[in-house]
Amino acid sequence: MTAQAEPTFGKRITVEQVEEGNILAPKFDEHGLIPAVTTDAETGNLLMLGYMNAEALKLTIETGEAHYFSRSRQVLWHKGGTSGLVQKVEELRIDDDQDAVWLRVRVGGSGASCHVGFMSCFYRSIPLGQPIGNVIEGLKYTETSKTFDPKEVYGDAPNPTKL
Amino acid sequence: MTAQAEPTFGKRITVEQVEEGNILAPKFDEHGLIPAVTTDAETGNLLMLGYMNAEALKLTIETGEAHYFSRSRQVLWHKGGTSGLVQKVEELRIDDDQDAVWLRVRVGGSGASCHVGFMSCFYRSIPLGQPIGNVIEGLKYTETSKTFDPKEVYGDAPNPTKL
Repeated sequence: MTAQAEPTFGKRITVEQVEEGNILAPKFDEHGLIPAVTTDAETGNLLMLGYMNAEALKLTIETGEAHYFSRSRQVLWHKGGTSGLVQKVEELRIDDDQDAVWLRVRVGGSGASCHVGFMSCFYRSIPLGQPIGNVIEGLKYTETSKTFDPKEVYGDAPNPTKL
Repeated sequence: MTAQAEPTFGKRITVEQVEEGNILAPKFDEHGLIPAVTTDAETGNLLMLGYMNAEALKLTIETGEAHYFSRSRQVLWHKGGTSGLVQKVEELRIDDDQDAVWLRVRVGGSGASCHVGFMSCFYRSIPLGQPIGNVIEGLKYTETSKTFDPKEVYGDAPNPTKL
């Protein structure tokens, strides 16, 4: 199933049409996915970077709730279906060449979006200005505590992080 | 060249170490790339989604200026090298499973980050709540005018947008 075969999306005919037109004609990668950047509508903080297949993008547009495609589990994923932390989409944008989307969301419940228990998946900062050649240590936590206990919420479900 | 062979990055040994440790151990995809989400440090707006190879990530950390790997041109790319619109990195973060980075930047010059001439690559919003089955039209511009003329800045260089 290619994006072009879906009745919901337009065809990609010219660069000008893709970049400056008003028809949604997304480009999915070789795995049928498009990256989705999700920020908190209120704070502007980056919550997560996910991926959508054509179905997830259509469901997000139709329902106004973020749907992704889980690469680790290889399934359509209604964010918050297990944890209750649904992401209500306040605004959905597409980029210049239509191969990425941006969701500005409000998160239900505790407001967390990260399976480790933090608000954002991006809870560690990398020190800058380090000389090249050493292993970079000293990642700094930007959140002081978890908002939930992953074991309580997810039980024995496999961890999505792959080595 | 794999990331694991680079002296700058740590090895990925356990899920706990990757998710909760303080050593930078990024995971590059099958093309040797890691996605990089770049937001405006002041407004929180998403400017672009780029990709870095190991060298681009190391140079970003070393210099504090955003470097990417251009997938369309297949070259290391010091953002702003052609246009003068360098991105100064105020903060660099890594996500839970260390397969994505987040750059909070201040952009030089006009402040634009998009090759089409807009501030953000995400200058069109997708209307929500549309019934499935129709081609989605009505993308709405969120920026009213371009900040520069791409022809003047890039001349006859090939457009990075691919159909």
